[in-house]
Amino acid sequence: MESLDILIQKGTIITMDAESRVLEGCALGIRGDSIHCIGGGVEKYPAKKVIDADGCVVMPGLINGHTHAAMSLFRGLADDLPLMEWLNNYIFPVERRMDRDFVYTGALLACVEMILSGTTTFCDMYLFEEEVARAARDAGMRCLVGEVLYDFDSPNYGPIQNGFSYTESLIETWRDDPLVSIAVEPHSLFTCSPELLSEANEIALRHEVPLILHLAETKSELEEVEKRYGRTPVEHLQTLEMLGPHLIAAHCVHLTDNELGVLADSGVKAVHNPESNMKLASGIAPVPKMISATLTVGLGTDGCASNNNLDMFGEMDMAAKLHKLSTLDPTVMDAQTVVGMATLGGAKALGMGGLIGSIEEGKKADIVIIDLNKPHLTPMYNPYSHLVYATRGSDVLHSIINGRLIMEGRKLLHLDLAEVMAKAQEKAREVKRWVSSV
Amino acid sequence: MESLDILIQKGTIITMDAESRVLEGCALGIRGDSIHCIGGGVEKYPAKKVIDADGCVVMPGLINGHTHAAMSLFRGLADDLPLMEWLNNYIFPVERRMDRDFVYTGALLACVEMILSGTTTFCDMYLFEEEVARAARDAGMRCLVGEVLYDFDSPNYGPIQNGFSYTESLIETWRDDPLVSIAVEPHSLFTCSPELLSEANEIALRHEVPLILHLAETKSELEEVEKRYGRTPVEHLQTLEMLGPHLIAAHCVHLTDNELGVLADSGVKAVHNPESNMKLASGIAPVPKMISATLTVGLGTDGCASNNNLDMFGEMDMAAKLHKLSTLDPTVMDAQTVVGMATLGGAKALGMGGLIGSIEEGKKADIVIIDLNKPHLTPMYNPYSHLVYATRGSDVLHSIINGRLIMEGRKLLHLDLAEVMAKAQEKAREVKRWVSSV
Repeated sequence: MESLDILIQKGTIITMDAESRVLEGCALGIRGDSIHCIGGGVEKYPAKKVIDADGCVVMPGLINGHTHAAMSLFRGLADDLPLMEWLNNYIFPVERRMDRDFVYTGALLACVEMILSGTTTFCDMYLFEEEVARAARDAGMRCLVGEVLYDFDSPNYGPIQNGFSYTESLIETWRDDPLVSIAVEPHSLFTCSPELLSEANEIALRHEVPLILHLAETKSELEEVEKRYGRTPVEHLQTLEMLGPHLIAAHCVHLTDNELGVLADSGVKAVHNPESNMKLASGIAPVPKMISATLTVGLGTDGCASNNNLDMFGEMDMAAKLHKLSTLDPTVMDAQTVVGMATLGGAKALGMGGLIGSIEEGKKADIVIIDLNKPHLTPMYNPYSHLVYATRGSDVLHSIINGRLIMEGRKLLHLDLAEVMAKAQEKAREVKRWVSSV
Repeated sequence: MESLDILIQKGTIITMDAESRVLEGCALGIRGDSIHCIGGGVEKYPAKKVIDADGCVVMPGLINGHTHAAMSLFRGLADDLPLMEWLNNYIFPVERRMDRDFVYTGALLACVEMILSGTTTFCDMYLFEEEVARAARDAGMRCLVGEVLYDFDSPNYGPIQNGFSYTESLIETWRDDPLVSIAVEPHSLFTCSPELLSEANEIALRHEVPLILHLAETKSELEEVEKRYGRTPVEHLQTLEMLGPHLIAAHCVHLTDNELGVLADSGVKAVHNPESNMKLASGIAPVPKMISATLTVGLGTDGCASNNNLDMFGEMDMAAKLHKLSTLDPTVMDAQTVVGMATLGGAKALGMGGLIGSIEEGKKADIVIIDLNKPHLTPMYNPYSHLVYATRGSDVLHSIINGRLIMEGRKLLHLDLAEVMAKAQEKAREVKRWVSSV
């Protein structure tokens, strides 16, 4: 009989497969980095490691479709402020002084928070992105990351030509990595010239990697793009011939019905960030319409400076409730749909739909196990409902990424939590000095 | 030197007092049921019990201003449904068969969840409310509770006249209880005749207890009240001479600016329930305007059938973000204001502002201690920001209610958690049978 590396037994498996199967008291076997077998008889296989999931939900690891991991070091630094005051007095002065070590420290702290709250894959945009890739690898997380590109000089690479070569070197370095993938990431249409955008697009197409940008996040972005180019953001992308299945657009708050159709027809993927859009008073992305238009939509937390947490369970709750309110229809964005956005929908949005996002034989073993034996998850009538409306990140018990047990009984197996936090506190003391000297 | 019952030392005390003092590394002493002393030298007092709050926030216990505790047994039973389908196929068939033991079991489960997430006081409306009072007393929680009154026969008391006498008997029974207070609670303007409302009002005034009802929660309520009486809900209450400082109005979603002024001038208190209002697609209460109009506003979770949790930290996060969105102003409902709604604002809304809601000498010792030594609360620049945007109920470490240590290191000291949950599971099996027989 074949031997398994990990056997998970007795759990309620939320597969998120094409039939949305929920398998009660079912076993699942992992060999190497992949899901080897599910269902009857699996519990009889010999296994190096057995995880008892009795009373637990076993589900695909959550996929944080858009974040800026290292901004965990700015969590709570400045809230409830007008955008320009926040940027000019806090974020910009600090970002100007950042270095590689700062980003590595913040990204590792974010990885720890994400693992502890059930996220197994994240998509990141920031400065010094090589450090984010390193942090993810050291944390054992799957990620799609890219260096932010814009018209001004970067604290990392200086002028934009270096940004392109930095990005291409990232693509080269991490090409065969089992966990880290690289994207080309121009910041937005109001911080990137048409030339920059076109060049970024060409690099992405040439290397067959995703192109990621912020799209139609705020009204002021719409006004700025209209003023400069006489177009909406989507029209601008269309003119630049950038719409296609390689494009992942974060936020997508201010879109017309027609633009939704254009994005869907082009195969563009969207990532919804409800908490950030609320906290920054940006608006409400038309997600129910996106779904009706068969646009692929993932879910993301955005960075800790505008959320202020990376807990995808909270994000699911917010997404489900926000759109019932915006449509005044309580049947919109039901719990199963929302779990889909945070799992297989997120995987498809990142171009990883064949790899992760559901529990199916042959897929990579990115799995989290959630302890339902808690007062706030008692009684249990419907697991999807609990996952969206009642579960917190702190209910996640075990996490497996790429077949490797990363967290067991809420204990991180390969990281020194105290050290990660102490280093973050040290960086925060620098941040306080930088801000007070503005 | 005076002896203390409990000494809390080294914490960051968020007082919520008139000066909004935040006291770093400060000690606090409790004697009997009250806060005896705060600040310099307190740590030298002899004490029966010493709690080390180093790296923790010490704050007033959270006040859940509106809930239906026993509905914890319906958590996730039916979500994302049109209102009438939810009521007719799930809630009503179950509520018709409920009994005292069912409500006690559900209320105790709710108390456990609330204690574990930092709530020390709750305000409840439901059937068999004597059982909710008993559950709160057994759990050691402070509460303001009342039997729901409406025009139809009740599964508890039968016809409404018995409802009035049941309520008066509750008032009598619990008059001198240190933890349990009673209110008169007609359900709403569309389920209670003018005669019922007036009688309820008279009882409340006669006994000097609060009068609590749901007000202007949904558009359909407005239409129904308009159809029957040719008035808005607030006009209807005004006509019935029910507006006054004794009235606590839950929800208050659909109010005109003029009505806000009328409520404020009358001294009426409001309780905001953002998550429930979103999940049921009811709308957005004009809370920033309420606050500008100097209306006292507390915060509540509503019941678990429409939330689906009792975590006031999640509710604070939602309240802060929802109103930034509704006003498109990121400076609205700053974190400190929101913490105020969940503490002193909630206390004032329940008529307990002199008793609880802030950490001040002489007030009752209702205090929770929150562990900040977590990755998702690292680094720490501003405690209010963390409490609203990043803390989860599961970060609450210790809870003291009326001077009594109720939870220590997340362990409930006076309840058998496994037994409470097992009994709830048992009741859930009955619920499943009831629902499947509809």
